[in-house]
Amino acid sequence: MYSKKNKNTSEKEKIIGVAKQLFAKKGFAATSMRDIAAAMKMSISTTYYYFKDKENLLFTILNDSGTKTLERITSVKGDSGDPAEVLKRMITMHIVLMRTNALGAKIFVEDTHNLSDDHWKIIYKQHRKIYEAYIQQLKEVQRAGMLTSKVLPITAFAILGMINWVYRWYQEDGQLTLEEIARELTQIISQGILKPENE
Amino acid sequence: MYSKKNKNTSEKEKIIGVAKQLFAKKGFAATSMRDIAAAMKMSISTTYYYFKDKENLLFTILNDSGTKTLERITSVKGDSGDPAEVLKRMITMHIVLMRTNALGAKIFVEDTHNLSDDHWKIIYKQHRKIYEAYIQQLKEVQRAGMLTSKVLPITAFAILGMINWVYRWYQEDGQLTLEEIARELTQIISQGILKPENE
Repeated sequence: MYSKKNKNTSEKEKIIGVAKQLFAKKGFAATSMRDIAAAMKMSISTTYYYFKDKENLLFTILNDSGTKTLERITSVKGDSGDPAEVLKRMITMHIVLMRTNALGAKIFVEDTHNLSDDHWKIIYKQHRKIYEAYIQQLKEVQRAGMLTSKVLPITAFAILGMINWVYRWYQEDGQLTLEEIARELTQIISQGILKPENE
Repeated sequence: MYSKKNKNTSEKEKIIGVAKQLFAKKGFAATSMRDIAAAMKMSISTTYYYFKDKENLLFTILNDSGTKTLERITSVKGDSGDPAEVLKRMITMHIVLMRTNALGAKIFVEDTHNLSDDHWKIIYKQHRKIYEAYIQQLKEVQRAGMLTSKVLPITAFAILGMINWVYRWYQEDGQLTLEEIARELTQIISQGILKPENE
């Protein structure tokens, strides 16, 4: 049965998808609501019906991307009693997420500074939670005597830096699959921070 | 003795410095030539005397930053016969460069997409040379039988990702000095990709 609500949801989702493509390609500042409406073949007023302005669209994209990332990496936490294994699974999960979230990752890195102060605070808190999830897991690894790296914040940012850079060089049609990339990066970081028997 | 040339050089350098501050703070798109002139307390036409447009300023900033990075990391190459040691020095040098180049690093990550196609090609080639410098060094390490990581491009991008993320979390007035950060990150990556005796 046709419902107005479903139509709205799917139109809204489509606008988000188109905005994501355009922001990732041209950057937030160079993209106008007019560009988004034109790519959707809808009127600009319909676009404004769903989103008050372009900044609200940016916030929605970043909020979705951050929420998904946080959900995924914390979802593996319950899996196993071995903290080093859980850490490795978090990293692998975070990298493989690039399959569906490469555009979100790019926009997070390159366009977060375009958010309003209020929205920035929300996105900052969300990414702070992602950081904290890694810190907590690193603490568990440390408590189990499996960690060799000394400074937890630097260790967490080393992990995040490696992961957040993937969108910049990974090519969907390239020689390396995302699974190979995830395996190799997880191996490098594991060997880099864990005692040999736990790599 | 006063010379017009020196005055021009220093005024030009000052414009670059101010533009760097503003681009890093507000982003390239949100900064106008008018903002730059106002911060310099000079007329907008004087600003245009030195730079044809804002994009040329962005290119100059990115080109300086990339040139300096390439010079520094390749300068350590002649230092020692031990390829693993040279690699570690490249990484440390690259991170410590953040002391004078944090704004350049931020603008490279967040604003490169605002370059014209011709300028983008030049900056892309430059960063390709930085990447190739790491690949060459990794090959030497591999030939010496000291490398554990298998896929050189992934290894190089793991290094670059860790380094290029530092601008995002390093705080000049924070608890960790840049030297501590460089030491710990170099240690993590060395342990992550080298055989134990070469870490």
